[in-house]
Parts: sequence; C-alpha cells; structure tokens
Amino acid sequence: MNIDMIRAAAQRFKGHGRRTPLLSSPFLDEIAGKPVFVKAECLQHTGSFKFRGGWSALSGLPVNERKNGVIAFSSGNHAQGVAYAAALHGVPAVIIMPSDAPRLKIANTRALGAEVVLYERATEDRDAIGARLAKERGLTLIKPYDEPLVIAGQGTAGLEIAEQATEEGITQAEVLVCCGGGGLTSGIALALAADAPAFKVRPCEPKGFDDVTRSLASGEIKRNAQLSGSLCDAIITPQPGDLTFPIMAEHCGAGMVVSEEEALKAMALAYQRLKIVVEPGGAVGLAAALFHADKTDAPALIAVATGGNVDADVFSQALATLS
Amino acid sequence: MNIDMIRAAAQRFKGHGRRTPLLSSPFLDEIAGKPVFVKAECLQHTGSFKFRGGWSALSGLPVNERKNGVIAFSSGNHAQGVAYAAALHGVPAVIIMPSDAPRLKIANTRALGAEVVLYERATEDRDAIGARLAKERGLTLIKPYDEPLVIAGQGTAGLEIAEQATEEGITQAEVLVCCGGGGLTSGIALALAADAPAFKVRPCEPKGFDDVTRSLASGEIKRNAQLSGSLCDAIITPQPGDLTFPIMAEHCGAGMVVSEEEALKAMALAYQRLKIVVEPGGAVGLAAALFHADKTDAPALIAVATGGNVDADVFSQALATLS
Repeated sequence: MNIDMIRAAAQRFKGHGRRTPLLSSPFLDEIAGKPVFVKAECLQHTGSFKFRGGWSALSGLPVNERKNGVIAFSSGNHAQGVAYAAALHGVPAVIIMPSDAPRLKIANTRALGAEVVLYERATEDRDAIGARLAKERGLTLIKPYDEPLVIAGQGTAGLEIAEQATEEGITQAEVLVCCGGGGLTSGIALALAADAPAFKVRPCEPKGFDDVTRSLASGEIKRNAQLSGSLCDAIITPQPGDLTFPIMAEHCGAGMVVSEEEALKAMALAYQRLKIVVEPGGAVGLAAALFHADKTDAPALIAVATGGNVDADVFSQALATLS
Repeated sequence: MNIDMIRAAAQRFKGHGRRTPLLSSPFLDEIAGKPVFVKAECLQHTGSFKFRGGWSALSGLPVNERKNGVIAFSSGNHAQGVAYAAALHGVPAVIIMPSDAPRLKIANTRALGAEVVLYERATEDRDAIGARLAKERGLTLIKPYDEPLVIAGQGTAGLEIAEQATEEGITQAEVLVCCGGGGLTSGIALALAADAPAFKVRPCEPKGFDDVTRSLASGEIKRNAQLSGSLCDAIITPQPGDLTFPIMAEHCGAGMVVSEEEALKAMALAYQRLKIVVEPGGAVGLAAALFHADKTDAPALIAVATGGNVDADVFSQALATLS
C-alpha cells in the first residue's frame, strides 16, 4: 500500500463518485469547545464511504477479470457499495447475505442490480458457498477492508479532507474516523501522511467493541469478545485487518471509545445542526469529537460521518435524545 | 434586478457560504420515471438557502450603513440567515419575533448572536416596533424577499445549479423550487435565464397556499385565503412580492402544487435515499418531482431542497410514512 495507489484511485473516482462536503456549525463547536468539521460521507452514493472502495476495486480490476463479475460477503454498506459500483461498470455482482438480514437491505442490494444469495447462518458455510460460486463463474472476491484496492478507494476521502481543510484554513487537526476493520482509517491515514502530515488520525469505536484501540495500545492484534449486540453494527468486526493494522500502527494516534448513548446523541445533533442523516456506527467519530474533545490535543477536529443507512425506528430513538 | 447583481453576490459569497451538493439516487429516479437531482440547500449555513440572501444583503450594504446593524422580521429561516450573516460581519442584528414563536427558534437566533425582540401578536404592531428601533439605532431593514440584494443572494444557488448541471451532463431540465414570496424562485430564474436558458423554473407550493401558481396563471398577483394551518410554514406568505412576481411571470413555467402528505413522503425519501434532513416546506419541490413528474416535460428534474429546520416530532411523522 502506498500513496500512489490512493492517487490512482482518486483519478478513477473522478466524475463517478461524490466529493462529499465538509460541514460545520457554531453550535457543534460550542459543545466540543473547539472547531469541529464533519466530512459527510453519508452523502456518498449508496449512503456510505463504501462506494469509494467498491468503485476503486471495480475500476482497478483488469478488464478481462472484471467482465466475469465480482462477489462480496456483506449484509450492509459494503454490499451496496460493491453492487452499485458493479452495476455502473455493467458487470454482475453476487452478494452473499445471511437469510436473516433485514429485508430492506436485501431489497436495496437487489434493486442496485446485484444477485443476492442467501445462506443459513446456523447450517451453511458462507465461505464455501462463495468459493464455489467464484470458481464456477470466475467471479473476483472483493473483501471489505483487507484488500489494497479497497483501502486505496477509501483513502480518496483522505485526499479530499486534506484539500478541504486547506480551503477552510485548517492547518492542524485530529481526524476522528469511525473504525471497523480499518479500511477507511488506514486509507485516510496514508493519504494524510502524504498530503497533511500535521494531521493525526484517531480510530473511533463503540464501547465493548474496541479491538482497534486495544490493538494499537498493545502493539498487537486483539479481538473483540463479542460480535453482536451493538447499534453500531456497521463498524463491528472481529479484529483489525492484517493489511490495515500495520498502517494504523504506523500512522494513527490512540483510539477513542464512545458509548452507544453518545453515538445516538451525535446522530441527533447531526440531524439538528448539520441536516444530515448518520447511522449509529457512522456517528462514533462525531460523538468522540463532541463529547471527548478533552482527550484531543489539536486545535480543530475533523470527524468522518461514515454512513447514513439507518432504519427509521433507530433514527427516531436518536431524535428522542433531543428532548 | 439583473444577472450582474447575482454574479456580484456570488463573488461576495465565495469563501463564506457553501456550494451545496447536487445529490441523486437511482431509487428516486425510479419513482419519478426520469432522472431527479436534488440541490441540497438544507446543507447551507443555518440550514436553509436564507443564509445566501442574508450574506448578500450584509456584504452588499455600504460599510457606514452596515456598521449600525440590521433588523429583520422573522420567526424562521430568514431570522437565522440574517443573524448569522450579521454575526460573521461583526455587526448587530435585531430580529423581531412573535412572543409565541417556538422557544427553540428564539434560542437559536439568540445563539447566532442576534438580539431578539418579542412582540404580542394580538396587541402590538410589529412594524411600528421595527420602525422605532430602526430609527433609534440606525438599523437597516432586511426584507425576506422583496429586496434586490436578497434576490441576488438567493440567485447564487441558480448559478451553482447551472454549473453543477453541466458537470453532470444535464442539458435540459425543469427546476422545481419551493416558493414562498418568490425571492429564491426569481433569483434562480434570473440566474438560469443567463447561464442555462434551456432550463425552466417551476415554482412549487403546498395545496391551499398556491398564491404564486394562481398569480402566474392569471397574470396578476393573487393572495392566499389563509396564512396558517400548514406544516409547510416556511413557505407560507400572503402573496408574491412586487419585485419577485414580474421576474417569475417573465421567466417561470406554470406552478406546481403538492399535498402536505406528499411533502411528508418526500421528506422520508430524502432521509432514506439521500441522507439529508428536509423540512416540509423545503420538500415541496422534491414532492413535485417524485409524485407529479407526469406534469413535467423536460428529460430531467432538479428539485431544490430549500431548508432542513424541522422539529423532531414533525420529522418522525414524516418517517412514519415509510412503513
């Protein structure tokens, strides 16, 4: 992985993905006690940054490999990002999802043009199903984070942050990134190391699922004790990736951990002050900025709002924290 | 009013206001049956396009006039736009609001640095209070729409639409603008007449408050029979302005009218598919695009989502239309 791969991904992304805005509000600055900027990746195609990695992977594959199509395992944002990127490239996408995935996510992924293959969590081996389909049809597997083309795609958000920070006159900042497997975090860290070396990336996680924070603190990969039971489902992964962890270890500051309640409050404030829809896992970075600014050193904070795919009942639960 | 005033306002706006994104989703295209783009003015500073007019007015005043400060009558988006623009210019703003205005709007306007003067609707004459304060303190009145500097400021959104449409390869479109007094609609119409003459602006209004639609149809200014009782409060005005109506009559196509239920559904779809927060009055243009596309001729529609300042209970009411 290097910066040239990210710059190449940015070239391929141009004209196809969105340069999402960097938003702010004096009301949020007041809560944090310092300027807070929000990179609104929820406004990316398919409602999350995952479209960047999906587009990078699809556009970066050799033509004769791409034409057979791609396959991915995901019931969430990665599924939609890969499905839409494949559709725009005019090639097939197969997405393998558990049969108990929310119907709306299955329907959305199908509507974006993908073939959804369902498996039974209890009785079927999803990897075996995937391997069989990939072999039969010549599909290329697009991993969600431990894949250089995907990390390069996510890193394009970091290049934009560096540009937009310059436009805003921000010269020093901590960049708070909601972190699951570390694809986005490591991509942004590499991009900023090149284009804004005075910025420090801080991975942000929900309490109880702080594998990256503990891994960075100890210097070796740690696992989460549990893998379900969080509203922040979009960023719950077993452990940092083999590719992403060394990059984070080299370039990132210490992780930050927020409560689920803080993530919900951050969603409500993003609604009220920025007019954007953020999902719980996508609000963890903003929650760290608003409620844990005392654990930061930089004069300004940039939080990445990574996604906005949230069911209405959970969103209403967040809004209820306003009253 | 002319295009040069809008271009001058755009120059003054640069570096201070946001070039809001033009968003889209294949799911919305499918509902409308043709491509739909959304100019997300809810992402503007203070959550609505009104900051453009406020900034234009403040930045366009002669320095010796501006330094005494400005005054405005508003309990809504215009209040916040003017208050914040004045604060950023470092000059006082007095906002006159009815004493029964929502507490949050009063608090927000104060938090943006304005002095809020409350009056009793039943017993006090707000114009007399405003005139007295303006005279005593040398304040300049910033009218919400029938004011050339304000129309010029709102027109900057039209210049951006023309640029962004070119970037997206849109060569012909109807531009659906939520319309109250007509400041935004007339500003955008003037901008597009210059920079995208193949585009046609259509003012959009809620059922029962279609003064502009009826005025355009009859060729003379018509009033609304009622002035309250709509969720779309942000765009309810007695009648089109004396300055804005002739501009709309020259440049706009026929008005479009949507129901309150359609506006709520459009809010829910903007939440679900675009990840933006839109208020009822700000969703009227999108509702026209999604549910009345059969009354349009152009191959593509551009709806302006004019604002996102909506209370959580009304937003939840909109989300309930999804289930």
